Amino acid sequence: MSFNWTNLIRFISEEDGQIHLGEVDTKKYPDIGLAVLNGEKVAVKLIKGSIFDGVVTETTMHVGRLLAPIGIEEVPIIRCMGLNYRDHAKEANMPIPDVPVLFIKPRTALNGPYTAKINVPKIAQDGSSDYEAELSIVLSKSGRDIPESEAMDYVLGYTCSNDVSARTQQFKNSQWCFSKGLDGSCPIGPVLVSPSAIGNPHNLRIKAIHNGTVVQDSNTREMIFDIAKTIAFLSQGTTLERGTIIMTGTGPGIGVMRNPKVVLNDGDDMRVEIENIGTLINKVHYE
Amino acid sequence: MSFNWTNLIRFISEEDGQIHLGEVDTKKYPDIGLAVLNGEKVAVKLIKGSIFDGVVTETTMHVGRLLAPIGIEEVPIIRCMGLNYRDHAKEANMPIPDVPVLFIKPRTALNGPYTAKINVPKIAQDGSSDYEAELSIVLSKSGRDIPESEAMDYVLGYTCSNDVSARTQQFKNSQWCFSKGLDGSCPIGPVLVSPSAIGNPHNLRIKAIHNGTVVQDSNTREMIFDIAKTIAFLSQGTTLERGTIIMTGTGPGIGVMRNPKVVLNDGDDMRVEIENIGTLINKVHYE
Repeated sequence: MSFNWTNLIRFISEEDGQIHLGEVDTKKYPDIGLAVLNGEKVAVKLIKGSIFDGVVTETTMHVGRLLAPIGIEEVPIIRCMGLNYRDHAKEANMPIPDVPVLFIKPRTALNGPYTAKINVPKIAQDGSSDYEAELSIVLSKSGRDIPESEAMDYVLGYTCSNDVSARTQQFKNSQWCFSKGLDGSCPIGPVLVSPSAIGNPHNLRIKAIHNGTVVQDSNTREMIFDIAKTIAFLSQGTTLERGTIIMTGTGPGIGVMRNPKVVLNDGDDMRVEIENIGTLINKVHYE
Repeated sequence: MSFNWTNLIRFISEEDGQIHLGEVDTKKYPDIGLAVLNGEKVAVKLIKGSIFDGVVTETTMHVGRLLAPIGIEEVPIIRCMGLNYRDHAKEANMPIPDVPVLFIKPRTALNGPYTAKINVPKIAQDGSSDYEAELSIVLSKSGRDIPESEAMDYVLGYTCSNDVSARTQQFKNSQWCFSKGLDGSCPIGPVLVSPSAIGNPHNLRIKAIHNGTVVQDSNTREMIFDIAKTIAFLSQGTTLERGTIIMTGTGPGIGVMRNPKVVLNDGDDMRVEIENIGTLINKVHYE
């Protein structure tokens, strides 16, 4: 691969108001989502080229607004894993699935961090809007019938994501594509961390934090189908296109299964924190 | 709308080997899929512009090979309705659903008519590859929160389609996106018929024909959620992008529910015939 970034962000710069890619110095900013939220003046080195072949330059710029690390025009589709954490399957009182449970979000669900709000449309304003903290990957190249042994070569990077779900609609319907496919129901970011910098992707603490309270706290080692198995399975007879986002499933503690229930309400502060990546922060907005 | 075609095809011309759009004279060729299959020399008027704003010209060309009426680069996604025919719900012994059952095929599932074969990958070569004859629509423009009363303005045209399904995988999994999302599992075409030419889209005979035997024979009036209701429902809080294909569900007689069972085998001839549109013909190919 030709890229040499390790912690990529996409942002609107303070200097020129344009969209750029940048490399974060994680020694200076261990969690850029929090740094921007706290009003720190954040400078990053510009990355030249696209997310797929970007090269870090010596030019620096200041971050105005953080965006999703990949733009909608480069994301063909979002493939999502249901029931892929052992501890979540236990909580849901469901048997461990024999095969990966795949559903799809359209690319129109893609959303960014922080100032991009989780937009809750009318149909989900019934006390059933919910979060699911998930590790997501972005594919670096297209492939089909990918052997498990080669699957990790297709991972461009790792990021935080939230599989926002409209539970009333979900439980009314055998298929999840509508209830989990609403506009903006897939916030991701802010940082895309390269395979060289993530460490072991199957040993990362992953948390959801709702209005300051930790509501999910698991570890990616709880995944039933690991990332290589997931890619190998999903690519059987199926072309996975470059830029595809794969959401790898969530741990226990989703709002609908808590007692008392937790709901995403207008104005709420919702965060997904993953070890070695950082914090995805969103405000909830009832439209 | 600016287009003035009524029966649009996309094809590779005999003259220049390039891809063109053409307007079919349905008096000369009432079923262009059959005409091309029978080796007739088929001439059509060229359509200038894209499928969304195409205008019929006086230039004629000869059809070499028929393609899907819309190309993959113009199709963001394929949204599909499960269990949307009253007579099929009865056959499947399932209650009539309260809400549309939506699942998604990726655009990589898009396939064409006739010489584009239904490609059955290894994972579906287990005696479970199956057909579902469906009326599909293509959206003329993007929209969100579309009222039922305006929904039909979003229909660019109607075509035949086949929701090819890998049943073993489908029945192993609560979600259908993998088993119905294999490459080439959505053949459509050959003709896209405009709203002005289709007649009543909710009164069309629809058949599946497997190796010359009629295996499905229903009517679009059996739809539980009609096209306007479907578009209105699916667009709630959700942007439906221009070029989206919506498959509207299938009638009774799918292979897995027949006695004896019918399976798509290597070399089979599979057809979907819809009144006022024509015949979508595919050969089955085991890769």
